[in-house]
Order: sequence, then structure tokens, then C-alpha cells
Amino acid sequence: MSAQPSPSAPRVIDSIVAGVRLHVLREVKDARGDLCVAEVGPDLPFLVRRSFLIYNVPSAELRGAHAHRRCHQFLMAVTGSVRVTADDGTRRETFLLDRPNLGLHLPPMTWGIQDRYSDGAVLLVLASDPYDPADYIRDHADFTRLAGMLAGLHGRFIMSLNDRAEVRETFAAFRLREVSTTYTIARGR
Amino acid sequence: MSAQPSPSAPRVIDSIVAGVRLHVLREVKDARGDLCVAEVGPDLPFLVRRSFLIYNVPSAELRGAHAHRRCHQFLMAVTGSVRVTADDGTRRETFLLDRPNLGLHLPPMTWGIQDRYSDGAVLLVLASDPYDPADYIRDHADFTRLAGMLAGLHGRFIMSLNDRAEVRETFAAFRLREVSTTYTIARGR
Repeated sequence: MSAQPSPSAPRVIDSIVAGVRLHVLREVKDARGDLCVAEVGPDLPFLVRRSFLIYNVPSAELRGAHAHRRCHQFLMAVTGSVRVTADDGTRRETFLLDRPNLGLHLPPMTWGIQDRYSDGAVLLVLASDPYDPADYIRDHADFTRLAGMLAGLHGRFIMSLNDRAEVRETFAAFRLREVSTTYTIARGR
Repeated sequence: MSAQPSPSAPRVIDSIVAGVRLHVLREVKDARGDLCVAEVGPDLPFLVRRSFLIYNVPSAELRGAHAHRRCHQFLMAVTGSVRVTADDGTRRETFLLDRPNLGLHLPPMTWGIQDRYSDGAVLLVLASDPYDPADYIRDHADFTRLAGMLAGLHGRFIMSLNDRAEVRETFAAFRLREVSTTYTIARGR
């Protein structure tokens, strides 16, 4: 029986683009095959409700070119390489995904573009939400305007949502203050 | 502007192995690249809390050879091909995953084996639970004994869980009867 190989340490690299992070995932290399893992909590800041694969993309093609209002995405080139550009309306950065253990987290309100698919490349996207056409922003001028508006919000608002990691992540750009509330179901029954 | 291509209809093929299903996922084929999608609800009967990739596996190698007590898995050969054998302790079936839009759902208490990885094959596994060594059954005799015990359960039990699609799927082998209950938080406060 061979010794159990131990995984490489995961790393997270911040981008200059708001909220965008490149995850170097834990990888276990072994003569019987290699494995890399993305787990909710340490790696994925959201529960996955949709997964899709993009393949057979001509190298000259440009894909993406939209932002999501609410949906988080986690992009991995599971084979081959893909170039991804992320843009928050102010700053822009380009990433080369060329190893299966690189995962790029694009939070909501990030404009994303993919190009330079290598021959045979497959892009895996893990998404926080089911498909919803209303969640897409397809016009870059609209996106820049909305991104600027959100970044410049003043004053306060009360938000009522379950206190979960993914909710806090979505509103990471805001300063949170908790308020007490009493919540009753079926009072007196 | 070209017409939007419409996705192929998804199909689900039941296996002779208890609870195991082969999903032919919706695929959108397009000159700009192809896409296939697995969404919680229509395709995935669980929320994804972990995703892993297996690659660089020598063709002669055999992987898997264990069952999970609670964890659901959804296997896809995102590139190349992989053979998967599923076994419920009584019946056994073999599947060839050789297209990216084939997803094999292995529910808990399914013994799974993968072999015949083609050159360059990458297997994607979407899992319902974080990694937990205690969830693994690694001895086939233990597995067969436990599978037989669960299949032969008589009598009733009361289960208190959120009534969600994935809970119903986990207990699909049982006949469910609902009972009423009153649930109060912070009564009188």
C-alpha cells in the first residue's frame, strides 16, 4: 500500500478588479492520476446551482461579453487554455487559465470576456444561480453606469436576508450593521 | 445578428441499478462553440457543495471502488472518455461516458468504479457534500451487507427534514407519508 499523497496548499490571489479572485486549488498528484478540488467554503464562496461546459470554440471567437446582476461564477479551463478578461467598470485585468487547478471567481457586477480558446479547450463554469435572462447585462455602457451607481451609493438601507456566507459575499462592498428583529411563525397556535 | 440556436431536449435514462440515472444534458451547438448545462432541479437532484476534476489517469488504472453513505455524485467526462461501473449491492451496470453532455448520477449507497480513461480524459465530479472520510465505505463486503440491510428495512420511522427535492430524492427508496406539526420560533416574545 502506497503512502497517501498530500494535497498542495490552496492559494487565493486578489485581482485589481473589485471582488475578482484567482484560486489556485488544492491538487493531489499521484501516479494513479491527479485530482484537484473546489469546495464550498474554502474555495467556492457560493453554493452551486448550475454548471455548464463550453467547448469546440474557435480560437478567434470571443465569448461572454456580459455581466450578471446577482449570479456568481467560478471559471476553470479543465483542459487546454482560455484567456479571461474581468472588468468592474473602472479597472480591468486579464487572466490566462491554463491549468485545471486554476479557478477564477467573478462576483456579480463583473463584466467578463473569454477569448483565445486553445485547440480542444473546455471551460467549466460553476454558477450560483439557475439560468435567468433577466440577470444578464449585455450592454457595456449600461454596465458601467450601473457599476458606478452602486459604487457611489450613500446613505443606508435595511436588507432582510438569511445571514449566510454567500449573502455576505454578495454585499461585501457594503459596510454591514446588524439590527435585531423578532420573527414569529404560527404565534399562539 | 444570427438566430439564437435552441438547446437539445434533455433526457434521463433509468438504470437497472437502484437510483442510478444517466442524464443526457441540454446541449446548444453553435459555430461560436458548444455549451451543455446541468442545473439543479431539472438535471442535478442536489445542491453542489464540492466539485473535483480527475486527470492524467493511466488507462490501465482503476479509480473509485468505494461507496458514499450520504454524498450524491454526478459524473461527467468533460473531454475524452471514461467507463463507470455502478453497483447497488444486487445489480451492476456499466456506462461509457464519452461525450461532455452525459452526466451519471450516483446516489448515496452506490458502489462506483471508473476505468478505461482515454488519453487526456478529464472526469468532472459534482458532489452534494464536502469531503468527509467518514462518508466512505471502502470495503465491498461491508457495502453489500449495509445495502442489503437498508433495502430490507421494515416498520416506520419519523424523519424531520426540510421538504426539498434533494431530501425526497435521498429517501426515494422509501414510501413517504406526511405528518402535521406546529413549529414556533420565539413564541410570545
